[in-house]
Amino acid sequence: MAVNLTEPDSLDSVPGVRLAAVAAGIRYKNRDDLLLMALESGAVTAAVFTRNAFCAAPVTVAREHLAAGAPRALLINAGNANAGTGLPGLAAARASCEAVAAALGCDAREVLPFSTGVIGEPLPVGRIADALPGAVAVLREDGWLSAMRAIMTTDTVGKGASRRIVIDGRTVTVTGIAKGSGMIHPDMATMLAYVATDAVLTAAELDACLRAAVDRSFNAITVDGDTSTNDACVLVASGRSGVRVADDPAHLAAFNEALQAVMDHLAQAIVRDGEGATKFIAVEVSGARDVTEARQVAFTVAHSPLVKTALFASDPNWGRILAAVGRAGVADLDVDRVTIDVADVRIVSAGGRDPAYTEEAGRRVMAAAEIPIRIGLHRGDAVARVYTCDFSYDYVRINAEYRS
Amino acid sequence: MAVNLTEPDSLDSVPGVRLAAVAAGIRYKNRDDLLLMALESGAVTAAVFTRNAFCAAPVTVAREHLAAGAPRALLINAGNANAGTGLPGLAAARASCEAVAAALGCDAREVLPFSTGVIGEPLPVGRIADALPGAVAVLREDGWLSAMRAIMTTDTVGKGASRRIVIDGRTVTVTGIAKGSGMIHPDMATMLAYVATDAVLTAAELDACLRAAVDRSFNAITVDGDTSTNDACVLVASGRSGVRVADDPAHLAAFNEALQAVMDHLAQAIVRDGEGATKFIAVEVSGARDVTEARQVAFTVAHSPLVKTALFASDPNWGRILAAVGRAGVADLDVDRVTIDVADVRIVSAGGRDPAYTEEAGRRVMAAAEIPIRIGLHRGDAVARVYTCDFSYDYVRINAEYRS
Repeated sequence: MAVNLTEPDSLDSVPGVRLAAVAAGIRYKNRDDLLLMALESGAVTAAVFTRNAFCAAPVTVAREHLAAGAPRALLINAGNANAGTGLPGLAAARASCEAVAAALGCDAREVLPFSTGVIGEPLPVGRIADALPGAVAVLREDGWLSAMRAIMTTDTVGKGASRRIVIDGRTVTVTGIAKGSGMIHPDMATMLAYVATDAVLTAAELDACLRAAVDRSFNAITVDGDTSTNDACVLVASGRSGVRVADDPAHLAAFNEALQAVMDHLAQAIVRDGEGATKFIAVEVSGARDVTEARQVAFTVAHSPLVKTALFASDPNWGRILAAVGRAGVADLDVDRVTIDVADVRIVSAGGRDPAYTEEAGRRVMAAAEIPIRIGLHRGDAVARVYTCDFSYDYVRINAEYRS
Repeated sequence: MAVNLTEPDSLDSVPGVRLAAVAAGIRYKNRDDLLLMALESGAVTAAVFTRNAFCAAPVTVAREHLAAGAPRALLINAGNANAGTGLPGLAAARASCEAVAAALGCDAREVLPFSTGVIGEPLPVGRIADALPGAVAVLREDGWLSAMRAIMTTDTVGKGASRRIVIDGRTVTVTGIAKGSGMIHPDMATMLAYVATDAVLTAAELDACLRAAVDRSFNAITVDGDTSTNDACVLVASGRSGVRVADDPAHLAAFNEALQAVMDHLAQAIVRDGEGATKFIAVEVSGARDVTEARQVAFTVAHSPLVKTALFASDPNWGRILAAVGRAGVADLDVDRVTIDVADVRIVSAGGRDPAYTEEAGRRVMAAAEIPIRIGLHRGDAVARVYTCDFSYDYVRINAEYRS
């Protein structure tokens, strides 16, 4: 059903970052479910975490450890979210960091833990600890593809992307992997993303790059507006290329573009893999007074169940898009200036159906698997784009029957 | 499928308010689709309208006429929303007021027009005008039941309620009717409500009573968060009882209680009639710092498609309710103090699943057709309650196939 991108068949290594995927038997049989990422000394790490007040135990511990100093390892398990687990959950997350520290020879506070899977079940720390020595033994820089697969839960395809740029004759690599199918399976669909580069960046520079890229990628996708207890996105800079990208604005721009491309690819891949999704929708708002206003309109349309069910039905029900724009809370919106286009067909102008619009043209563009909806507010220069998918029978089936 | 209240078999007349329902053939055959309400001279009217920037033509005209002076008549048609119709739509709304004025012998600006039905089609003003003399001929104070049925579109039952209070030996009546099935059928599901009383109130007093009652009734229901282009709620006070309810705080309280009871009944009836709804859900938030915060949490839970699909499946998926509370944007929420109860079963305490909770108890309460969800924030005294329904296969079917 999904509108997937193709799974990558190779990902570029990032010097200074080694990965190992092993089968710890946390929940799945006969597949890798534990990923260890070892970072060279001197690597710099930035991260953003879920804003959900009910955050999972590993999120609490990862935040704490990141604030304490430069991490030397990331540990990610699939199959168990260690969320809604109270104090025992926190103890389990800390114990898993201790186990990594022992296996790798670092401090437990230099380990960031991440979990994804079912909520409310105890994390089997023993199995994780048992699997770690084997993981350390197989750490390698070209382990990205198996790493990508080890963190999958309800994902139907692996999600990864690489970009390379050349600066003054030296190559800088950005590679990232992600898992998640957009909160379609909320108990299992935490969104996790790990991106690494060998560029040289300070912690502050790296943090700024990450936040800007997340804002336009992972923070601009929605399936149903829900936010997981475990979401996280981590960016690591090993510095091994020796290229200080922030020294030259043109170099920084090139780096940010490569980073954005990787993050956009991963974010899109998550929306497209929504189980039950049959259409991929880009809602683009232009002519807003500011970005906040543009995002507000884009998200109101992208969250509307009425718009999303109409898209599933390939129904050019322009009244629903128009009503969503109208209730987005834009102050003093002059509805007579608003234009709405679906692909190359103008459907709304002058406060109502465009005179040249025909149902036939509407049906044609709504029948596509990828549908761009362009909303022009014509009152400023700000733009925003949000990716989403449709609401299908399968959305209800999957979410209603998931635990049965 | 709906979880309906029983349709009333009688509604109390309100002296000074006469009603006539007739068949104008606007869209339906063999049924009344036009309602005329004639108000005695001296009647006071208050109204609230949709906040959607794309409001329908009759909303624009009704707002304008209400500001100009005391209305003598309300005209409501079913089958055509006169929305998304641009300047011709405005002209049609004005023409329908002219037709009422001619038939009733008043000024066109003393008429408030309302429309509900399909969006984007021209209003057949000629048929409305043709039907009006017949309507004027049958105006009667006991016409509420047929009035209730004339304004239905996708409703499966009529919605009406009456309350009577006795003040100093004199009876004051409040009667109301409403239509709507909660934006389940957005093109046809405008929410309209008309409530009348024979109490004596000034325009300012009436407006305050209406806004307070709407806030806790129609503004506290949601099916999918969408807002129609035509929504309106009107409160008329004919004054014929001679009882000035605002002269005595106890009398005003009794009146407001009766008004609230009528409006609550109508609002609940709309949520319960959501096509595709199989459960009626009351989300009650207590212990918030202020009402805004309480409503924010209640609406975040009530809007969550993940919570709503779990309710459809009778699945006690407490992680979804917990995650919705967590992402509601409450500043400094201490998750360890949050409690969540479904009916008489505590499901969440101390930041996770309550120790005494069992899946069996959870399944029992989630299997009911009426499910109260109580969320305690334990940080203040403010409360809020929001009514909603579940998301079923039929929600998608109805909304996807509606126009096909």
